[in-house]
Amino acid sequence: MDDDRAHMRHALALARRGLGRTWPNPAVGCVIVQDGRIVGRGWTQPGGRPHAETMALAQAGAAARDATAYVTLEPCAHHGRTPPCADALVAAGVARVVVALGDPDPRVDGQGIARLRAAGIAVDTGICAAEAREAQEGFLRRVTQGRPMLTLKLALSWDGRIATATGESQWITGPEARRRVHAMRADHDAVLIGAGTARADDPGLTVRGLGIAHQPVRVVMSRRLDLPRDGQLARSAREVPLWLLHGPSVAADLREAWRDLGAELIEAPVICGQLDPAASLAALGARGLTRVFCEGGGTLAASLLGAGLADRVALFTAGLAIGAEGMPGLGALGLDRLAQAPRYSLARIERLGPDVLTLWRSASSGEAEPPRP
Amino acid sequence: MDDDRAHMRHALALARRGLGRTWPNPAVGCVIVQDGRIVGRGWTQPGGRPHAETMALAQAGAAARDATAYVTLEPCAHHGRTPPCADALVAAGVARVVVALGDPDPRVDGQGIARLRAAGIAVDTGICAAEAREAQEGFLRRVTQGRPMLTLKLALSWDGRIATATGESQWITGPEARRRVHAMRADHDAVLIGAGTARADDPGLTVRGLGIAHQPVRVVMSRRLDLPRDGQLARSAREVPLWLLHGPSVAADLREAWRDLGAELIEAPVICGQLDPAASLAALGARGLTRVFCEGGGTLAASLLGAGLADRVALFTAGLAIGAEGMPGLGALGLDRLAQAPRYSLARIERLGPDVLTLWRSASSGEAEPPRP
Repeated sequence: MDDDRAHMRHALALARRGLGRTWPNPAVGCVIVQDGRIVGRGWTQPGGRPHAETMALAQAGAAARDATAYVTLEPCAHHGRTPPCADALVAAGVARVVVALGDPDPRVDGQGIARLRAAGIAVDTGICAAEAREAQEGFLRRVTQGRPMLTLKLALSWDGRIATATGESQWITGPEARRRVHAMRADHDAVLIGAGTARADDPGLTVRGLGIAHQPVRVVMSRRLDLPRDGQLARSAREVPLWLLHGPSVAADLREAWRDLGAELIEAPVICGQLDPAASLAALGARGLTRVFCEGGGTLAASLLGAGLADRVALFTAGLAIGAEGMPGLGALGLDRLAQAPRYSLARIERLGPDVLTLWRSASSGEAEPPRP
Repeated sequence: MDDDRAHMRHALALARRGLGRTWPNPAVGCVIVQDGRIVGRGWTQPGGRPHAETMALAQAGAAARDATAYVTLEPCAHHGRTPPCADALVAAGVARVVVALGDPDPRVDGQGIARLRAAGIAVDTGICAAEAREAQEGFLRRVTQGRPMLTLKLALSWDGRIATATGESQWITGPEARRRVHAMRADHDAVLIGAGTARADDPGLTVRGLGIAHQPVRVVMSRRLDLPRDGQLARSAREVPLWLLHGPSVAADLREAWRDLGAELIEAPVICGQLDPAASLAALGARGLTRVFCEGGGTLAASLLGAGLADRVALFTAGLAIGAEGMPGLGALGLDRLAQAPRYSLARIERLGPDVLTLWRSASSGEAEPPRP
């Protein structure tokens, strides 16, 4: 049993390599063990295939016969663009399959495990299930709730400010924190910002300085699509995907102009004068995104937090105060009572040079998870 | 040399037991070692005497002869209410004295060490000097700058708020953080708040729940002395010291009324419509305080930070957001440029149940320190 956990942790570490690169598919890891010796290792490849099991079985070859396969998510049972992994495991002659978590995708949902058992393979489930749920939260949310997991980044002074009253904001945090932000962008499928931030900062939103070629989708929420068409985002829209969420009232010629620049346009409904945050995330989920990293601004951050859509919060705290006349990093939440404030539990603390990163999880994030098989 | 450092660390741990209880004297620790064996341990007793050396020598008795004494601060050389510790060490016949830090008090300032050397005792200085400077920062600031060390507590939501727009503030942080606040009160000589907080929260400002009988002085800064005379502070002024810093314009009968309640009144000058923070701290230093713990409110916190008087900041971060319409925990700082923002370096991180405590030190706090002997 200890061995099972150790091998599954190994498979989970492999799975995490795929985070941000496998959407719309889950990032899965697989380890094949023969007589205590690892004979195959695999993880979902960029773009979502080949699957982890395929990779690990190819590496194991004949050594897979009578071996144990550790898989972080139930093997698929349906013919997609690849044949079902459950069939591949059967064909390879493995004796036992250990699964961390069932796949709630209705095309799988227990059928992968049933197919293995029908072939006489011993199947154990639930090993390291909590860790697997954490690693696969994005995929699970998309399948069960129809929206991606959302991580909200806040980089603030002690007193919750991001700039002085005059708008000066460079730099609040140090280079170590900024590097960590780039690593976070890289393990999400997409980076999301509001229109105000796009106008004020003219950001590129790409992953830089980490030796990573893969780039997440850049998503901007702009009800009126009133973004500069000569900014960094517009200019790079043909190299790195740029998706623009906009309201129904945007004129056809403005939509066309952005399409000509290479952007993908997504219409979403407006609620209380803003793009509906839940419908916007649902639109991203429908396009296959599983993990979205929101970098502000304060109005968007508040609307996501207020709607209960921020599953994780990455709070970077810099060692300075800006004062009450500074620009707040979070907009109004409209709380009547303190008991209504969105509460989070502390998941991790990291020291990043002069700054501190605390990672928080929504206290309710456990509730949305699918039942185990 | 490693032994020297280990014994000095022991002496420093003893010294810290006195923090908050020895003012106006420094909290000193002393360990006496004979042939590698600890024969005496002492620390400054509540109220500031007996001194650490007296305690340790009494415990060592005849075993102090030819021993080594480790002292966290240069032994005193002047006759105060106790005879000089330098003379006591000479009389006890110690062979060697190891001193972490020279005492900048003009009545000592190298004379303690000179007196030991004149008696033929070997003296080494500078062992664990940085740690000693940290432990004795309050005393050192009072002697060299005429004001106490100031620790500013901020207990905030992620976005720097302390209450909703309607003023609801119970509870932002959890019981572990509140317990830590009481421990911090206990190792400071005084707790300081502004008049607004005194009126809004009606706090007791005592140390509770830790089995500690000793109470720090409670200090309230109130320019007009317009505090409720039936509140917790007023009612307990005869049991636990209550000092009121007020402006020059307060009428004689109001001063008299507060004196009758048992409060000590301290007049301070007004600057820009507020009590001058530097002059107020100087008045506290003149009365012997070495370590002051400020618990807000936001206006006082901002005035102390803005004046460069907050040597340490204890930031408690709770896992929630309140939103931009909530009450800020820090007032306006009047910065023109981000480069003017008070910057601090991270000293420590503690996880306190659901909350995080980060401890920061003023980046300039090293500069004000006295030269080593």
